[in-house]
Amino acid sequence: METNTVLGRFEERDWETGVDGTLRFALVGLGWWTVDVVLPAIEQTSHCETTVLVSSTQEKADRLADEHDIERGLTYDDFHDGAGVDAYDAVYVGTPNAFHLEYVETAAELGKAVLCEKPLEATVERAERLVEAAEAADIPLMTAYRMHTEPAVRRAKELIDDGFIGEPTHVYGNNTQPILEMNPDPDQWRLDSDVTGYGTSVMDLGIYPINTARFLLERDPIDVTARMSSSADAFDDVPDQNATFTLTLEGDLPLVCTTSQHAQTDTQLKIIGTEGSIELAPAFHGEATLHLSSGSLRAEIEDVDYGAVEEMREEFDYFADRVLGDAPILPDGRHGLADMRTIRAVHRAAERDERVEIE
Amino acid sequence: METNTVLGRFEERDWETGVDGTLRFALVGLGWWTVDVVLPAIEQTSHCETTVLVSSTQEKADRLADEHDIERGLTYDDFHDGAGVDAYDAVYVGTPNAFHLEYVETAAELGKAVLCEKPLEATVERAERLVEAAEAADIPLMTAYRMHTEPAVRRAKELIDDGFIGEPTHVYGNNTQPILEMNPDPDQWRLDSDVTGYGTSVMDLGIYPINTARFLLERDPIDVTARMSSSADAFDDVPDQNATFTLTLEGDLPLVCTTSQHAQTDTQLKIIGTEGSIELAPAFHGEATLHLSSGSLRAEIEDVDYGAVEEMREEFDYFADRVLGDAPILPDGRHGLADMRTIRAVHRAAERDERVEIE
Repeated sequence: METNTVLGRFEERDWETGVDGTLRFALVGLGWWTVDVVLPAIEQTSHCETTVLVSSTQEKADRLADEHDIERGLTYDDFHDGAGVDAYDAVYVGTPNAFHLEYVETAAELGKAVLCEKPLEATVERAERLVEAAEAADIPLMTAYRMHTEPAVRRAKELIDDGFIGEPTHVYGNNTQPILEMNPDPDQWRLDSDVTGYGTSVMDLGIYPINTARFLLERDPIDVTARMSSSADAFDDVPDQNATFTLTLEGDLPLVCTTSQHAQTDTQLKIIGTEGSIELAPAFHGEATLHLSSGSLRAEIEDVDYGAVEEMREEFDYFADRVLGDAPILPDGRHGLADMRTIRAVHRAAERDERVEIE
Repeated sequence: METNTVLGRFEERDWETGVDGTLRFALVGLGWWTVDVVLPAIEQTSHCETTVLVSSTQEKADRLADEHDIERGLTYDDFHDGAGVDAYDAVYVGTPNAFHLEYVETAAELGKAVLCEKPLEATVERAERLVEAAEAADIPLMTAYRMHTEPAVRRAKELIDDGFIGEPTHVYGNNTQPILEMNPDPDQWRLDSDVTGYGTSVMDLGIYPINTARFLLERDPIDVTARMSSSADAFDDVPDQNATFTLTLEGDLPLVCTTSQHAQTDTQLKIIGTEGSIELAPAFHGEATLHLSSGSLRAEIEDVDYGAVEEMREEFDYFADRVLGDAPILPDGRHGLADMRTIRAVHRAAERDERVEIE
């Protein structure tokens, strides 16, 4: 397979099975991500439509439904009571981490497919209950990883599968951002351990290189060493304002990650191998740009920048393709649960200052 | 200080004290680095001249002296006996690691200034003897780090000192190369633990991000966790075909490094801070290119590529400036010895699979 063959069909949806129909969504949790990113992305999809908005108050749900020309607004209580159940086919759970479980449980009771934001829940135990609820009700459950359908990532995976980098030797991922500049509220939920879970930087940012490396290399993590620290006042309640960890992936491959919620915005994922390297820089948050290098002494670098794709559009159409058809969902509940176990191990490794096995 | 002010005088030799005169060199160890890189670089300097070549045989020394129009060729034995001592003022030691000590000892006895390649020796104990020999004879001794006088590195240091990145949160360094493609001989000295010392990837490549980060941030390493492995046949005798390690620098700052002698060529040094980031990519081996990023939500990236400078020319003129004048040498023997202790600790940390303090 030629590099040019792979890159020539950069945005091809090779995952598409060709279903008909439209999946109608209830969106649960109307924060900025759902309103400013998810809603407009769904409008661009081929197979998705938003028909219901679910929020804390009827007033907020109705106001946003009205603004966005959406059929119906519901309160969380109404949703749990099964109100408007015929108006939607699937549920997108975009609430803070520790509230995912209750909405997935209700969706499961109502027999609705679920696309649940990552990380799957605040703790491994709650994520297990979430996955078990979906399995018991036999509903489709997808963990909302955007990178699986990001064209730069899919093309990178094809090149890796084709031997472009040879045997991988190291993986490095960075994901840093200044969360207090994005949202100045020191009491925001991502800094509240009751709501975010184990912490903030690994749960919210480290999960990107962890999951993307798993997807690209088809290797799961075995064990981890880690260090983390918090010093700014707003990070009093979470241990990982900054975190650094090294996972051993299957086949004795190190994945080194650096993350911070209190640093300059920077994202990178680099996979070095015996024959070449593949880099996404930037890597995450809708800007993925692919850099390729191969050759012996001098790196021949080909930069590929096809412009950002709307990652949420791709993700929602993938989910609809799976729910409307019968192909398996790759980032399913068990897939998301594995990352929860890894994140817990990262925190334990930092607390104990020793290598921790991932269960 | 404005970024543009710093970058506008990119190649300025801010370290120059303005000495007169010429330092005449005996070059010891005529491998490809000395012949193909050092010799032509010295010809470009303002204050250095090669007057003596020292090698294993009279024939090789004479042949290369003749080819390069150099006064005199000596054997190692002649050098130790003090032959031609009036023909040179300083000694460049470019032999394999485990032979540095004997030539520095002789240079010290002869009262000559020494520029010694890095790492300083094969082991901490031998490096200590080397430094003590120089100190006892009161000769100038410099460890041959090229990054201290690399313009991209010096400008990066000025920006860091000026607060461009705020408080640093993470440092990442990578230095990988396919040594068997550069030299196909599986018995080359860099893969022979009797000659290279503790290993190959950390000694030869990891030393770059370790030392450059120390220089840029003025923070020394406190402790380290590490992992390393060798699998290819040619790496039988060294533990670190691939290595990954995390140093804690003073002020609880993590420096994560990945290195390999059996992977795609790739060099990078990234320093992320609360207000910005500075990256050298490529970072080492004469190609340093500076990338700057600052700003809150969206990174504003300014790429600076002034083309490679001849790093060895800068390094030799710096050394001559210090020896001909009386300004202190920054990367002196003690400075290089500290990196030897760090490298030993990296190897111990990998062997023990636990955090090791750096003595």
